[in-house]
Amino acid sequence: MLRDTYSPRIIEELNDHYLKVVKIDGNKVPWHSHTDSDELFFVIDGKLTIEEKPDTTYTLNTNDLHIVKKGIEHKVHTESTCLILLVEAKSTKHTGDIESEITKSIDNQLNGLSNK
Amino acid sequence: MLRDTYSPRIIEELNDHYLKVVKIDGNKVPWHSHTDSDELFFVIDGKLTIEEKPDTTYTLNTNDLHIVKKGIEHKVHTESTCLILLVEAKSTKHTGDIESEITKSIDNQLNGLSNK
Repeated sequence: MLRDTYSPRIIEELNDHYLKVVKIDGNKVPWHSHTDSDELFFVIDGKLTIEEKPDTTYTLNTNDLHIVKKGIEHKVHTESTCLILLVEAKSTKHTGDIESEITKSIDNQLNGLSNK
Repeated sequence: MLRDTYSPRIIEELNDHYLKVVKIDGNKVPWHSHTDSDELFFVIDGKLTIEEKPDTTYTLNTNDLHIVKKGIEHKVHTESTCLILLVEAKSTKHTGDIESEITKSIDNQLNGLSNK
């Protein structure tokens, strides 16, 4: 479905939120948080591990859903390719205030929106 | 999962939106619209028909997703039991401004929220 990993694609708008699909493969997402916004993770296909500080780990399989609440430091990683759906406030930076090798701008993520 | 049909249960909060699960069986949802808010439908299990005025019909199967944009008059119906996930703005009335036999208050829908 997506060629590139770690490159969210905005597929829909829901009011003040975007729906994004992203392919994760490995452990490149840095620890980060979103101060003002919850973030929804839904596993379309695969297995996703979500870690939340201080010491909680969630394992999500296909069709599992989890919401990371605002302000919670978190990171996600996989052991193999995993396709996920994110629902994030439009104002949310996908890696929080952390700039990392995977950080993408909203303009870059909008390449997936058919009516842009 | 749910005993009653047409009785949305709020299961999560995502910023200014609620996630709700609801079981639909038949054709009781009236034509209605949400003036200020898009509404997300995701089919957890079953088959859902969404009609939008003037003349568009969508058939959603398990794992299919559709967003009804704000202001669009719509109704949903099924031929058999269907479990769906809704993502709606907290301010959204689930049958719009139409009061019908299935209309439920937010307090009623909150019975599903574990931390209420």
